[in-house]
This record gives sequence, C-alpha cells and structure tokens, in this order.
Amino acid sequence: MNQPDSPALQTALAYYDAWRRRDHSTAMNVVADNVVSDTPFGRLAGAAALHQSEAGFAEILTGATLIASFGDDTTALLLYNTHTLPVPNVLSAKYFLVENGKITAIKGLFDRSVFAEAQGASEHH
Amino acid sequence: MNQPDSPALQTALAYYDAWRRRDHSTAMNVVADNVVSDTPFGRLAGAAALHQSEAGFAEILTGATLIASFGDDTTALLLYNTHTLPVPNVLSAKYFLVENGKITAIKGLFDRSVFAEAQGASEHH
Repeated sequence: MNQPDSPALQTALAYYDAWRRRDHSTAMNVVADNVVSDTPFGRLAGAAALHQSEAGFAEILTGATLIASFGDDTTALLLYNTHTLPVPNVLSAKYFLVENGKITAIKGLFDRSVFAEAQGASEHH
Repeated sequence: MNQPDSPALQTALAYYDAWRRRDHSTAMNVVADNVVSDTPFGRLAGAAALHQSEAGFAEILTGATLIASFGDDTTALLLYNTHTLPVPNVLSAKYFLVENGKITAIKGLFDRSVFAEAQGASEHH
C-alpha cells in the first residue's frame, strides 16, 4: 500500500511539483549537491549539471500529469505524462533515492523516439 | 511505505517473474482476457495480442533485474532492467491495473532508441 506519509515520496513530489511548474530553482531545494541523475541522454553528475539540464528542458515543458506515485522510507517512484510543446504526452517514470530529506540519485525514463518522430512529422507535413 | 501484501503487487510480480523467465504462458494466468496493454509501439487489445507480442519478444529476452516495486489494492508499478541479446540493460517501467486477481491494463515504458542505437553500432563496427 502506498503511504502518503512516505518521507521519500514527500520529497520526490516536492521536486516533481516544482519541476512541472517550470520552477526548477525551487525543485533544487530538495536536491543534494552531489546528486547523480541518470537520464536517457546519459549521466548528470552534481546539482549544477541537473539544474542546467532541466532549465533547458523547461523551454519546451508545459506541464505534467501524475499517473502513479509510490514511496517508502528512502525511495520513491513516479509515473506521469510529461506535456511538451513538440509532444503533448510523453509517458515518463522517475525513481528517486532520498537521504535526510535530499534527493541523492534520480533515474529518469522516457522514450526518446517520440521526440524524433514528432520532429520527422513536422518536417514532412 | 510499500507493502509486500499489496494484492495488486503480488499479481504484478507473478506476471513479471514468469515473463522474465520467458514463460509468458504462465504469466498469462494472471491476465484478464480483455487486457489493454499500451506499449511504446502502440496499443495491444486483448490477451491474445499481448501474448503474441511477448512470445515474439522472448526471442531476444535473456532476463530482467528488479530495481523497485510498489503496489496498493488495485495498482502496481515496477522499475527494472530488461536484459536482451542486442542491449544488455534496458531500463523499463511497467504499470499494472489489477481487478479480482487479474491484470486488466498495462502501461509499458522503455526507450526504443537504445535498440536502434545498438543496431546502428553493430552495423558500423
């Protein structure tokens, strides 16, 4: 049973809620300086690299809709649709490790192909 | 807090464990006839379509390693690495809806690009 009082889930949702509002500076309040973030494009080492990447992504991000969220003492797992300018719904998962209220590791997952396909479609129509 | 006694998680893990052993016929024991499965390649409507797709995928599947698993009364969410012949580790998420001990809906997520990249690499080396 998912417990709303999962401390790791509370932290992950604080991150997610700020991120989806394109306020990644606020999201960084719950991120550890030495966070390691594995994305479909590769590894981002440290808070500055994560913030730079997400600040860039915010230029095409329009929002996100949560599908499922679970957590325990030290981990949380979210499934959501990411809404972007080129692709309205990008199914996405994010896994968080949390220590002492700070996110120390993220694994992000989505299908990169949907962006390439959207680009191809716009070029051909 | 994740609870091992989540009925939906037990069903999802029964499916996953049979699937990763390439025994999808056994996995089908916990799948409803009218299951709807959304995959990165599109929607599969019904148990026969799901089974045909996974029986084909089993030809390149070598196993899977669970990273995280959560569930509540009616839903479960898994994160795992899928091991395949062309790509050793494919980060994957699967979300399950469960009714009366049977899986009625699946959302599967992985990055299709990793397979295209592996094919491109093998063609160029």
